[in-house]
Amino acid sequence: MSTKKPNLFYAQSGGVTAVINASACGVIETAREHRNEIGKVYAGLNGIMGALHEELIDTSKESAKTIASLRSTPSGAFGSCRYKLKSYAENSQEYDRLMDVFRAHNIRYFLYNGGGDSQDTANKVSQISLEKGFPISCIGVPKTVDNDLPITDNCPGFGSVAKYVAVSIREAGLDVASMCASSTKVFVMEVMGRHAGWIAGAAGLARKDIGEAPHIILFPEIPFEKDKFLKKVQSCVKRFGYCAIVVSEGVREKSGKFLADAGGKDAFGHVQLGGVAPFIAEMIKQNLGYKHHWAVADYLQRSARHIASKTDVEQAYAVGKAAVDFALAGKTAVMPIIVRRQSRRYSWHIGEAKLSDVANVEKMMPRNYISRDGFGITQAAREYLSPLIKGEDYPAYKNGIPQYATLKKILEKKKLKAWRPKTT
Amino acid sequence: MSTKKPNLFYAQSGGVTAVINASACGVIETAREHRNEIGKVYAGLNGIMGALHEELIDTSKESAKTIASLRSTPSGAFGSCRYKLKSYAENSQEYDRLMDVFRAHNIRYFLYNGGGDSQDTANKVSQISLEKGFPISCIGVPKTVDNDLPITDNCPGFGSVAKYVAVSIREAGLDVASMCASSTKVFVMEVMGRHAGWIAGAAGLARKDIGEAPHIILFPEIPFEKDKFLKKVQSCVKRFGYCAIVVSEGVREKSGKFLADAGGKDAFGHVQLGGVAPFIAEMIKQNLGYKHHWAVADYLQRSARHIASKTDVEQAYAVGKAAVDFALAGKTAVMPIIVRRQSRRYSWHIGEAKLSDVANVEKMMPRNYISRDGFGITQAAREYLSPLIKGEDYPAYKNGIPQYATLKKILEKKKLKAWRPKTT
Repeated sequence: MSTKKPNLFYAQSGGVTAVINASACGVIETAREHRNEIGKVYAGLNGIMGALHEELIDTSKESAKTIASLRSTPSGAFGSCRYKLKSYAENSQEYDRLMDVFRAHNIRYFLYNGGGDSQDTANKVSQISLEKGFPISCIGVPKTVDNDLPITDNCPGFGSVAKYVAVSIREAGLDVASMCASSTKVFVMEVMGRHAGWIAGAAGLARKDIGEAPHIILFPEIPFEKDKFLKKVQSCVKRFGYCAIVVSEGVREKSGKFLADAGGKDAFGHVQLGGVAPFIAEMIKQNLGYKHHWAVADYLQRSARHIASKTDVEQAYAVGKAAVDFALAGKTAVMPIIVRRQSRRYSWHIGEAKLSDVANVEKMMPRNYISRDGFGITQAAREYLSPLIKGEDYPAYKNGIPQYATLKKILEKKKLKAWRPKTT
Repeated sequence: MSTKKPNLFYAQSGGVTAVINASACGVIETAREHRNEIGKVYAGLNGIMGALHEELIDTSKESAKTIASLRSTPSGAFGSCRYKLKSYAENSQEYDRLMDVFRAHNIRYFLYNGGGDSQDTANKVSQISLEKGFPISCIGVPKTVDNDLPITDNCPGFGSVAKYVAVSIREAGLDVASMCASSTKVFVMEVMGRHAGWIAGAAGLARKDIGEAPHIILFPEIPFEKDKFLKKVQSCVKRFGYCAIVVSEGVREKSGKFLADAGGKDAFGHVQLGGVAPFIAEMIKQNLGYKHHWAVADYLQRSARHIASKTDVEQAYAVGKAAVDFALAGKTAVMPIIVRRQSRRYSWHIGEAKLSDVANVEKMMPRNYISRDGFGITQAAREYLSPLIKGEDYPAYKNGIPQYATLKKILEKKKLKAWRPKTT
């Protein structure tokens, strides 16, 4: 075994968020505080692909100021990827390659910043590293805008998209309210959440008083019923003059078919261009005749660092920091989680979960968080969601534009041959 | 003539903005400073409709704190409308009715907060009030996200949507950049601007260095050429790994047909659901095969008070204040404008334009603001646009949600019979 200090490998995985770099900041700043125990912090260029291709960003080349500014920079500063490792039995060469790279660069700590799939990968790497006689401390760092990881009270990345969605529908709702007497009466905003309705639900926080936006939320958890929905739209317009709707991209028919897919092709098999928002808007126009507008926030919502939740930023940083602390404590196959204290005023601390308990489990909105009619959130949901969007944490601006970190991304010298996986 | 103090009527007109209420705040606060000269400030419920229907919100019933909070509240707090008065010859009863209402409530000041059409209306009311022997001081208050009013250097409302658009494409661009190695390669964001490309152009401010988003801007002023566009997309993806595109809703083919309309119907005449962003995204996918995402900001962009430009808020307030000052100085048929000083550091002051010069003239992006290839902005455009998005002016938050003003909107007692216009 090398007498050199062990190095740390950190990678970002899957869809990026407004605060995943705050976790990176927590990892790197904490590692730098432990120079006696940790050598270099390498970050994978484009996530785990960077490990497979031995493209290791040497973060020691980045200044303290640059690393600090990661805290307020959205997206994945080192690059992320959609790439799920198969099981060892199915594709052992990927794990063997990872072990080769980790060994070649004396990497003894592997911190993987992602959702359920990534925690599964980190768990496997931990096992295999033990089997291969080169034990690596593998720590998951939770991240997902979908808020669907189990055990942890909530997921870093979610609070900020939740805040964006709530603020956006509040603002757009005021816009429609002010014009509805003579113009647009229905507004539809599409938000993310293919399986779980957490993001759509968070929009409900925008409403303080009855009659305010959003009037209707469509959740993936509640099968879409056209007649019931149209009746609700009509009653909102009659009662309040307008109707603001938030629709999750994952809304489905009873059959399980995505609503967006249902309208996704015309009778001749041509692909429909729109998402679910224009589909819903058009349905309303055709059936009720109301003038409508629609918005699709798409990536804007998950990259909106300018309106990030302070709670979210702090938690994202904290799980990054805790991951390093866990690694230094000799732990492996665990993930720091957010634990909500049982207290009147919201407070939280970092806890710990086994990766084997986290991997590949999706946490949906509980039914008691959704109102009986299926179109809104309950008080229980409000109490859960509200603290997560609390506080503002603005980035620095120059000439009106946020100053986001730009990294040098200098790669460590390769020690191995290029990776040419055999086709499996 | 009544010995009572003359009253002031203020109305919001057309599409609302993030800062039109800041103008209202400027009007009302300034009027309150001149209690000896101005009686009540009435605001039209839903704009000029409120005058026609004698629905006059008595703003004296709103507290100083509420009026102050209008400065940081988006949309039209008193309601706006899309309603253009015809010429006196075509529909004299509307003007007669306005005069009746103004006379009944001793309204001697008419402040109309809107775009080109509204300034035209204010101008006509001024003339007619003179002809009718009940002279009213009619002052326009400029407002439009489209930035297309002439004479004024820029329009209140534009700076904030410009900032929203620039910040959003910067953030979404970072998102795409971080994932493009294995996922989405093309991102298309649709913005407002049916005739003029100012909003689309402002997105160009997001780019500081070559290779950053946005790589392509599609302006209404530049006829869309499919092959040239696709070639540019391809070269961006090859060179930078991804391509972020901002498209104005008003982009047209050479024939003058809106691009969104071109894709707006299928061969069987069915209305297409999507806007121009999904149309462009689909075109790229079909021709180049790249994985894409798209966003349509719609009302989110013009209501985004949370990311308003400080310059814009200050100017919106200033034109409201100046309108009252003009009225008190006995002026009529004029509009306060923003005048940019010829100095190295950006500064501005309030000037004055005749409504007759402002009405019904649209200011397009000058050709020298658009790069030679038609896909970007020039240094001249940057110098013009950059100061307009400068500075942040955050609203107050409570529990993570902006605290926007809620008005009582108490109506003045009616003195006239209900208005039942004869069909013309």
